[in-house]
Amino acid sequence: MTSPTLGIAMIGHSFMGAAHSQAWRVAPRFFDLPVRPVMAVVCGRDRGRAEAAADRLGWASAESDWKAVLDREDVQVVDICTPGDTHAEIAIAALEAGKHVLCEKPLANSVAEAEAMVSVADRAAERGVRAMVGFSYRRVPAISFARELVAQGRLGRIHHVRAQYLQDWIVDPAAPLSWRLQKEKAGSGALGDIGAHIIDAAQFIVGDTIREVCGTLETFVSDRPLASVHSGLSGTAVDGGPTGPVTVDDAALFLARFTGGALGSFEATRFANGRKNAIRIEVNGSAGSLAFDFEDMNVLHYFDGTDDAATAGFRRIVVTEPQHPYLDAWWPAGHGLGYEHAFTHQAVDFVRAVAAGVGPTPSFADGLQVQRVLAAVEDSAAARAWRTT
Amino acid sequence: MTSPTLGIAMIGHSFMGAAHSQAWRVAPRFFDLPVRPVMAVVCGRDRGRAEAAADRLGWASAESDWKAVLDREDVQVVDICTPGDTHAEIAIAALEAGKHVLCEKPLANSVAEAEAMVSVADRAAERGVRAMVGFSYRRVPAISFARELVAQGRLGRIHHVRAQYLQDWIVDPAAPLSWRLQKEKAGSGALGDIGAHIIDAAQFIVGDTIREVCGTLETFVSDRPLASVHSGLSGTAVDGGPTGPVTVDDAALFLARFTGGALGSFEATRFANGRKNAIRIEVNGSAGSLAFDFEDMNVLHYFDGTDDAATAGFRRIVVTEPQHPYLDAWWPAGHGLGYEHAFTHQAVDFVRAVAAGVGPTPSFADGLQVQRVLAAVEDSAAARAWRTT
Amino acid sequence: MTSPTLGIAMIGHSFMGAAHSQAWRVAPRFFDLPVRPVMAVVCGRDRGRAEAAADRLGWASAESDWKAVLDREDVQVVDICTPGDTHAEIAIAALEAGKHVLCEKPLANSVAEAEAMVSVADRAAERGVRAMVGFSYRRVPAISFARELVAQGRLGRIHHVRAQYLQDWIVDPAAPLSWRLQKEKAGSGALGDIGAHIIDAAQFIVGDTIREVCGTLETFVSDRPLASVHSGLSGTAVDGGPTGPVTVDDAALFLARFTGGALGSFEATRFANGRKNAIRIEVNGSAGSLAFDFEDMNVLHYFDGTDDAATAGFRRIVVTEPQHPYLDAWWPAGHGLGYEHAFTHQAVDFVRAVAAGVGPTPSFADGLQVQRVLAAVEDSAAARAWRTT
Amino acid sequence: MTSPTLGIAMIGHSFMGAAHSQAWRVAPRFFDLPVRPVMAVVCGRDRGRAEAAADRLGWASAESDWKAVLDREDVQVVDICTPGDTHAEIAIAALEAGKHVLCEKPLANSVAEAEAMVSVADRAAERGVRAMVGFSYRRVPAISFARELVAQGRLGRIHHVRAQYLQDWIVDPAAPLSWRLQKEKAGSGALGDIGAHIIDAAQFIVGDTIREVCGTLETFVSDRPLASVHSGLSGTAVDGGPTGPVTVDDAALFLARFTGGALGSFEATRFANGRKNAIRIEVNGSAGSLAFDFEDMNVLHYFDGTDDAATAGFRRIVVTEPQHPYLDAWWPAGHGLGYEHAFTHQAVDFVRAVAAGVGPTPSFADGLQVQRVLAAVEDSAAARAWRTT
Repeated sequence: MTSPTLGIAMIGHSFMGAAHSQAWRVAPRFFDLPVRPVMAVVCGRDRGRAEAAADRLGWASAESDWKAVLDREDVQVVDICTPGDTHAEIAIAALEAGKHVLCEKPLANSVAEAEAMVSVADRAAERGVRAMVGFSYRRVPAISFARELVAQGRLGRIHHVRAQYLQDWIVDPAAPLSWRLQKEKAGSGALGDIGAHIIDAAQFIVGDTIREVCGTLETFVSDRPLASVHSGLSGTAVDGGPTGPVTVDDAALFLARFTGGALGSFEATRFANGRKNAIRIEVNGSAGSLAFDFEDMNVLHYFDGTDDAATAGFRRIVVTEPQHPYLDAWWPAGHGLGYEHAFTHQAVDFVRAVAAGVGPTPSFADGLQVQRVLAAVEDSAAARAWRTT
Repeated sequence: MTSPTLGIAMIGHSFMGAAHSQAWRVAPRFFDLPVRPVMAVVCGRDRGRAEAAADRLGWASAESDWKAVLDREDVQVVDICTPGDTHAEIAIAALEAGKHVLCEKPLANSVAEAEAMVSVADRAAERGVRAMVGFSYRRVPAISFARELVAQGRLGRIHHVRAQYLQDWIVDPAAPLSWRLQKEKAGSGALGDIGAHIIDAAQFIVGDTIREVCGTLETFVSDRPLASVHSGLSGTAVDGGPTGPVTVDDAALFLARFTGGALGSFEATRFANGRKNAIRIEVNGSAGSLAFDFEDMNVLHYFDGTDDAATAGFRRIVVTEPQHPYLDAWWPAGHGLGYEHAFTHQAVDFVRAVAAGVGPTPSFADGLQVQRVLAAVEDSAAARAWRTT
Repeated sequence: MTSPTLGIAMIGHSFMGAAHSQAWRVAPRFFDLPVRPVMAVVCGRDRGRAEAAADRLGWASAESDWKAVLDREDVQVVDICTPGDTHAEIAIAALEAGKHVLCEKPLANSVAEAEAMVSVADRAAERGVRAMVGFSYRRVPAISFARELVAQGRLGRIHHVRAQYLQDWIVDPAAPLSWRLQKEKAGSGALGDIGAHIIDAAQFIVGDTIREVCGTLETFVSDRPLASVHSGLSGTAVDGGPTGPVTVDDAALFLARFTGGALGSFEATRFANGRKNAIRIEVNGSAGSLAFDFEDMNVLHYFDGTDDAATAGFRRIVVTEPQHPYLDAWWPAGHGLGYEHAFTHQAVDFVRAVAAGVGPTPSFADGLQVQRVLAAVEDSAAARAWRTT
Repeated sequence: MTSPTLGIAMIGHSFMGAAHSQAWRVAPRFFDLPVRPVMAVVCGRDRGRAEAAADRLGWASAESDWKAVLDREDVQVVDICTPGDTHAEIAIAALEAGKHVLCEKPLANSVAEAEAMVSVADRAAERGVRAMVGFSYRRVPAISFARELVAQGRLGRIHHVRAQYLQDWIVDPAAPLSWRLQKEKAGSGALGDIGAHIIDAAQFIVGDTIREVCGTLETFVSDRPLASVHSGLSGTAVDGGPTGPVTVDDAALFLARFTGGALGSFEATRFANGRKNAIRIEVNGSAGSLAFDFEDMNVLHYFDGTDDAATAGFRRIVVTEPQHPYLDAWWPAGHGLGYEHAFTHQAVDFVRAVAAGVGPTPSFADGLQVQRVLAAVEDSAAARAWRTT
């Protein structure tokens, strides 16, 4: 294959790193791409672990300093898979170094950082350098197809959006105080971690933005056993071991009004016992409705309000037809995709946009807008009243 | 209310008697009927129990001899809710006495008896006396509506019918040897008891009859504890108590070919652990498909093969719209019906046919045809080969 | 049957009247009751229509003045099925006349009226006169069973409640301006009509009350064609006919905090295209979860958090076992019930409480508490901030 | 990475070739393997197309003669992805050349060929050369987990197995006469193509084999338009174009009895309108039941008959927990897998068996046994009677 290549550097190599590696590895094998991504280098603070990751995940080399990556001529793309508190610094430096950037969500841990990133991305775009934020669920085919149906006007005027992201991984009070439960590291709890996903997905599907919100946050378990005695946090666990305070939200709920007049109800929680990764989105419009649940990710339920009343009903569309987004690259109808395919589709869209010289979406500006919604929810929860975004 | 009345005598007052009583009681309260059914008399062999049933179920009087009922001038309808081995004698006598007859399924315990009943019913029809067999599931609105869709040609040519009736009430080997498990009393096991229902329902929906079958019968538990030491049966239970042989089938499976060319797969069992009363029917045609499960009895799934491929999907039709069969008499859309409503609909259709002077369906001839399918399955199971009906 | 009787007078005879009539008719036929309800008299403002209702619904007599009913010695119970603006006057008079009262929800159209009713009911109780409000969904067996599971501690500490009542009967802007869309008659829109049901059901299941709320109301279609030119309202419809303003909410959403610490998310709407009467309630606790949808009303989904991780999963419980609430009176396992059965169960519980001389639930005080939640939601929506109940 | 390698040669590169390529590519990135598979060479009859496949699918080289592959020293495994009529020749030669073989299903197009392959495989095994047949659905985690539950005795004695493989890709009579519809090329229609999968999966789950069968075959559309005028077949299509006869079955149904006493009902069809790739398997045992549908492939429904009656219900197990088969290599709980992951798991198990020097399963003998069931179904359909396998 003599097609031109696009050298990728991935910063960070844990959960998201594994997903992104799979995407870069698989995308050119199923999709016709104008340029071929090359897995040039993976970067991690610990050199030994970075090298092991390179070997395991299939990267050609490893680095321990992300700044060194920016000097490499074989790198045209920086793929940021690190925690949110590092995004701004890396993304800004990469863009300024002329590297295209794919940055995991959330764009940043604060609106201010996100604003700075957007500013840099805007200037970079003028030089043909592209930036994208990784709201991968947009590329689940059922969600992409939901967007298509709304864009075609199949739902008419949108009245209702209800979106839930339900997990249960810390419902046990004995679950340890991981870094994700500490505000200084994670920035936010359920709200920023998973609430951000349903905000983006809901706005994407309806093609509209949230104008104002009223929310509440809750931390059900305020102290947890320390994962390590060296963490420097204080307290005593039930079994006598040391505990520390949980400083982020376990759950976040908010009502929303969209610019176009739709009402929204959002809920993100890590305490929905029995729900592992249930992303549920339902949209009701004047001409029809849609419903999705990530627990059955290859299915979209669609109610066509123009069907005659006797035979109308939510259609269980198995989103595996060649007419569906991304599906003609994969298997015959009825053969479902999995979680990581959304990352592959994200890589495909990113590569195509870069090659075509257009701005990929969701842009950094889209990521900033989500950040503003998150901030408005936090403000609203503190004020116990509605806040505009 | 000055409308003319139709005096009903019900023979038998256990499970089916309770369902039929509810039907006669409720039908005129929700449906406009040309004649009003009057619950005149209930009949049971034990006078005391019959009188208690009259009081509990709301019948005006009680009898202990069914023949006496035939002499009553206030009785125009005999509703037979006794076990199958008594159907022929009662139905024939009633029809000859000029009483309309509604007879529970199975029509009889043998083809010969059923043939005699049809012969008498045919002669009675010439005198305006009507006969109907109680395959009540036809009147579940979702099943009635399925029939309508097929009759409208919405499924095109029918290719496949698969029907299952799954129960589990004797999966425990310690369940006692009730009369239902003894051939001389019950005539048949799962095949005749519940298999008959799905044969009728499937034939009703597709509007076609089964031409030939190949089946197998199985008795998984061959001996069971005697329900009573006085039953005269022999054997010893695991715990040392007496046991007796099960002489009917626990499960019956058969393949079928319909006259019009469709293939059928049928299964009736009392050993489907966890399935309580699951009647599942799926029909696939050249233009669409239908699927029903009695565990969700207010829903019909309909696939319209003429929908465009991207938005085609099984529609979950909640069969509670006023356009759906029987539904305009009940509640607003979305308010479901229950098991016994099918009996109410059956009573309504029976009363209307009698008043209109037309033959109600399913007729005794329809009941005989089901009986012939059952007999063919038994023959086939014995011969280990296909048999025509 | 020589059991003592309880004479019932029903005021109002439309939708709710039909449901209550069915309940009084059917309850003694399936349940052993200490006293037998007698359908003595139905009352409606128009004598002719009341008499027709008596004939159709099976009441022994008809009245056109509800006050006359209170003088009748054959009446011990007044069953109020009229619109909410009449509840207070009738209920108070009936209780003061020594009649037991079953009053449809909402208890009243205002907190003040409801408070007066509670006050009278409290005094009546001292004389052995009973009062109950008709939140019938409590008696759907799956919801009753949900309450049992929570009461047994099977869910542990409750973290989340999400409840939705979704309808779509006015999603078409051409639907006429019925009295239900006018505040002076209906008092409230989706909030009071259907929101009240999920507030009661959710509080009933978790055994806790809502402490504070933050809500929003919306009227998507502000003007509608007049149902009749005589209605005296102004405006012009799209087709040139007269229109009038909708003065109630089409949709109501609110967040809630329960006294015990649970978070709630509630939504009631008449604009959820394709959802006819979808009441969905999900409860997540530290030890398990429950989920219910009235579109599949005989099923309760239960997640037992103590199951081992590999075989844990939401159990689809078909709530038709004899061990389930109310079910031993009905059919064998697997034979589902319908919408109106909840009214029958309500009648059964009411009769039993009256006969036993104890206060039935939900009491008028319970109804008042729901009213206070509704009022707090309205206040919150106006203030755009949280409000305590 | 210095681990030893295993050179793979893949013969054939269409649908199955794409799936196998993905498996070899991905397996070592998520699973710890004792030897690393190396994608050495892909082979296809047309050199140009083989080279394009190598480039697209990521193979290091291409060959146009499969015999040449057997001489290569960098090849230790031959992965056969060609149509069934070529399996025997290639597999036998490869085994005799000392290459391990992974052969796609069906093992062969006839029992005789399959017997020869087993014979050669047995001799090869004595020399440490391994052979496996590719019934990939065994490695769908929900199916693997179903096997585990049965093996643990969680279902008790197995009474019922019902298995359906439903597709609809030729329900349109205008679909052309592809090679899959011609017996001389395809060997069999729905029976061998997809029926083989559910036979293997059902036997695998219950851990038992089919002893006897009674089946029927049907070709609903007997003539179809020629895909190409050069095919040499005769006839005239509806639109005047040439047609040819369909010489394989469109649908195959059979009843079965397992050695251990279970009853089976099997159905494979390409005419189930609206079902794209629905593999449904339900197993009922004395202690519990299982149900699976490939349309929701990450879910296994499990009924534990030892749960108390009130809270018993089919558990919707989302098979994504680390305790589930293969899942600890993938994503956190709740993140589903797709169709091709089963091939990755197949590759993993194959590589591990080869490295450990043990025989992988399903073996060629397992493939032969499935072939015998298929042959018995065909014999039975011709004889219209039961046949032993």
